[in-house]
Amino acid sequence: MRSRLLSLKMVLNLSRCVTVVNSPNFAMVHKVAIVGGGSWGSALSVIVGESVESKKHLFDTTVKLWLLREEVNGGEDLAELINRQHENVKYLPGIQLPKNIVASSDIALCVGDADILIMAVPQQFLAKTCENIVGKIKPTAIAVTTIKGIEVDEKRNMCVSSVIIQKILNIPVAALNGANIAPEVAEKHFCEATIGVQREQDGELLKQVFNIPTFHVNVVRDLQTVEYCGALKNVVAFAAGLVDGLKFGTNTKSAVIRIGFLEMINFIKQFVGEPSMETFHESCGIADLIATCFSGRNRKVCEAFVKGGRTIEELEKELLGGQKLQGPYTAAQIYIALERRGLVDKYPLITTVHKICSQQWEPKMLIEILCSQK
Amino acid sequence: MRSRLLSLKMVLNLSRCVTVVNSPNFAMVHKVAIVGGGSWGSALSVIVGESVESKKHLFDTTVKLWLLREEVNGGEDLAELINRQHENVKYLPGIQLPKNIVASSDIALCVGDADILIMAVPQQFLAKTCENIVGKIKPTAIAVTTIKGIEVDEKRNMCVSSVIIQKILNIPVAALNGANIAPEVAEKHFCEATIGVQREQDGELLKQVFNIPTFHVNVVRDLQTVEYCGALKNVVAFAAGLVDGLKFGTNTKSAVIRIGFLEMINFIKQFVGEPSMETFHESCGIADLIATCFSGRNRKVCEAFVKGGRTIEELEKELLGGQKLQGPYTAAQIYIALERRGLVDKYPLITTVHKICSQQWEPKMLIEILCSQK
Repeated sequence: MRSRLLSLKMVLNLSRCVTVVNSPNFAMVHKVAIVGGGSWGSALSVIVGESVESKKHLFDTTVKLWLLREEVNGGEDLAELINRQHENVKYLPGIQLPKNIVASSDIALCVGDADILIMAVPQQFLAKTCENIVGKIKPTAIAVTTIKGIEVDEKRNMCVSSVIIQKILNIPVAALNGANIAPEVAEKHFCEATIGVQREQDGELLKQVFNIPTFHVNVVRDLQTVEYCGALKNVVAFAAGLVDGLKFGTNTKSAVIRIGFLEMINFIKQFVGEPSMETFHESCGIADLIATCFSGRNRKVCEAFVKGGRTIEELEKELLGGQKLQGPYTAAQIYIALERRGLVDKYPLITTVHKICSQQWEPKMLIEILCSQK
Repeated sequence: MRSRLLSLKMVLNLSRCVTVVNSPNFAMVHKVAIVGGGSWGSALSVIVGESVESKKHLFDTTVKLWLLREEVNGGEDLAELINRQHENVKYLPGIQLPKNIVASSDIALCVGDADILIMAVPQQFLAKTCENIVGKIKPTAIAVTTIKGIEVDEKRNMCVSSVIIQKILNIPVAALNGANIAPEVAEKHFCEATIGVQREQDGELLKQVFNIPTFHVNVVRDLQTVEYCGALKNVVAFAAGLVDGLKFGTNTKSAVIRIGFLEMINFIKQFVGEPSMETFHESCGIADLIATCFSGRNRKVCEAFVKGGRTIEELEKELLGGQKLQGPYTAAQIYIALERRGLVDKYPLITTVHKICSQQWEPKMLIEILCSQK
C-alpha cells in the first residue's frame, strides 16, 4: 500500500513538474515566432501581428518571421526589405504587413526566445527545418503547425506534420487548419479556423495568438482529425477540379465533395482514431473542403490536365509557378495505406484520384466510377 | 387481461389492414404520374422516364405529366406540343424528353390511375393542386414531394409540403431532395438525391422510380430532416449570395456555409424532432447546400440587391423572370418561429438574412454580424 501511495505521489509530482514546464502561464508575456515566410507564413503574420498587438498582457508585441535568405530586386536581402517596407514583395506583394513583424534569416535568433512557434514552411522542408532548430529553442516552447500533408515513412507508417515536429523537437504540438486561402486571409476578409490541441490547457492561449474579429478560431481537442482533414481535403479537391475540367456542373461537383467528405470521415475513423464528429463540422472540416474545392488552383491545373499531353508535375511548374497541388501526392500516400490494408474498394474517390493522377486511368473514368457505384 | 389481448389483436389487425392498403407490392406494375410540368417537373421526367423504361417488371412505362393548360407559339397547346415534339419548349427548351412521357392538362386523367404521384408544382400552388385531386386518386397511392418550402399557418405552426399533402390527400408521403439543379439534372450530369420516407416499406420502390446510373438515390427514414434541409438551405444560400455581392471571397463564403449548416442542424433539432446526423451528410443535406450556394441564381440577385435601390421582389421579376429565390420568404417564416420561442439570438445567420431581406439592415451588416460573434 505504502509503495503504491509513494508511486502515486511520484506520478503527481511528475505531472505537476510537466505542467510547470510545458503549460502556458497566463501571467507571463509570450513571445511568438513564425517559421516560414512564404505566402502562407506572410499571410498569417498579418493576423498574428494584429492579434498580439491588441493583447499586450498576453504577448510580446514583436513577432519574428523567419525566412530563407534570398535576394530580390537585384541584390537586396528579402528580410531587410520586409523590415523596411513592411511588405513581402516576393511572396505576398501588395499586402501591408503589420509593423510589429520583424523578419530575419537567422533561424536561431528567430526561435531562440519564442514561447510559441508557428510552423509555416512547405511540408518537404519541415523535417530539415526542425533539425536546424533542435537545441536552439526553449524547452517550454509549444509549436503550432499550419502545414497540411501526409507522408508514409520508410516503415510505411503515416506521418502528419505534428508527428514530425514532435519527434524531432520533443515539444507539445497543436495544429491550425481552416478555410483559409492565403491571399484572402492577408486581405482580412472574414474567415474561420480550427486549432486542434493535444492538451486542453494549451487551447485558450493558442486561440488568442490568432483570434481577431476577422479571423475566428475554435479550439477542439482532436489534433489528428484537424490535421488529417487538412491533408485529405486536397485529394477531394483534385476530384472536384476534374469535374470542372470535364465540364460537368455544380450537381456533380457537390456529389463529389459529399462522397469525398464521407471518405475523409471513414478514413480518419479507420486509420487514425476515434474522431469527434463535430470536428468535421468545424472550419477545418467541411468549410476548408468547400473552400479548397472552389479555389481556382485545382480548376486551373485540372482543366489543362483533362485536355491531356502533360503530367501534373509539368502543369504545376507551368501554371502554379512551382507551387504544389498536394492532392496527387497525398492520394498516392493514402493509396499505399489503403492497399496495405486491402481497403482500396472502400474508397472509390481517393483511389480514382490516385489512378488518374498516376496516369493509369483517363480523367473521364471519374464519372464512370461515380455512375457505377451502388 | 382479455380486453387488453383483444385490443392488441385489434391493433394488429388494423396495422395489417393499413399495410395491405398502403404498402407497395413488388409483384404488381406501378403507374407513375408527375404533377407539375415546369422546368423542375420536366427535368425530373427525364430521369423518371428513363428509370421506369428500364424496369418494366416494376413500372408501367408510360409516365403522365400534368401541367396547366397553356398556349405557346401563337396558339398551340403546350401539352400537345410536348407529346408531338418531346420537348417542353416553354420551361425546358433544348432538352429531349423521353418518349414515354405523356403530357396532359387534364389532372383527373393524369392522377386517376397513378400508384405514385410525384409532386413538382411551385409551393404556392400545392394546396390548391391537392384540393383539385381529392377524391380523384387511388386510395392506395403514395406521394413523393419534391417541393421545398416552409410555411407558417394561421395557427403559427410550421408546415412543409408533406404535411400539406398528407392533410389534404390523406395518403403516405415521402420527400425527394438533393443537389439537383434542374438544367443539370435534365442534361443527365451525374448527381445524387435523397428520399426521406415515413415508412420503411416505401423506400425501395420509391428509390427505383428515380434511381439510374446518372441519378443516384439514397433512402433515409428521416422525412422531416430531408424536407427541412431543402427549405432551410435557401436561407443560407441567400447569405452566400450576399458574400458574393459584397465581393468577399471563398473563405468568407465557406464560413457562411458552415455557420448556416450548423444553424440548419440546430433548427431541425430544436423545432422538428430528433434528426439522424447522417441525414445531414446525405445529398439532401450538405451537398444540396453547397450546390445552391454556388448556383448562379443567388449571386445574380444578391449582386444587384447589394448595389441597392430595388427590393428582392423587383429583382426576382427582373432577373429571374418571376422565379422565386425562396431564401427571403423562408427566412421570414423561420424568423416568426424563432421570435415566438425567443430564440432569435441563437440563429444569427438566419436572423441577419431576414433583417437584410426585409430592408431593416444594410447588406454589409452580414459581415459585421459575422465578425462580432464570439
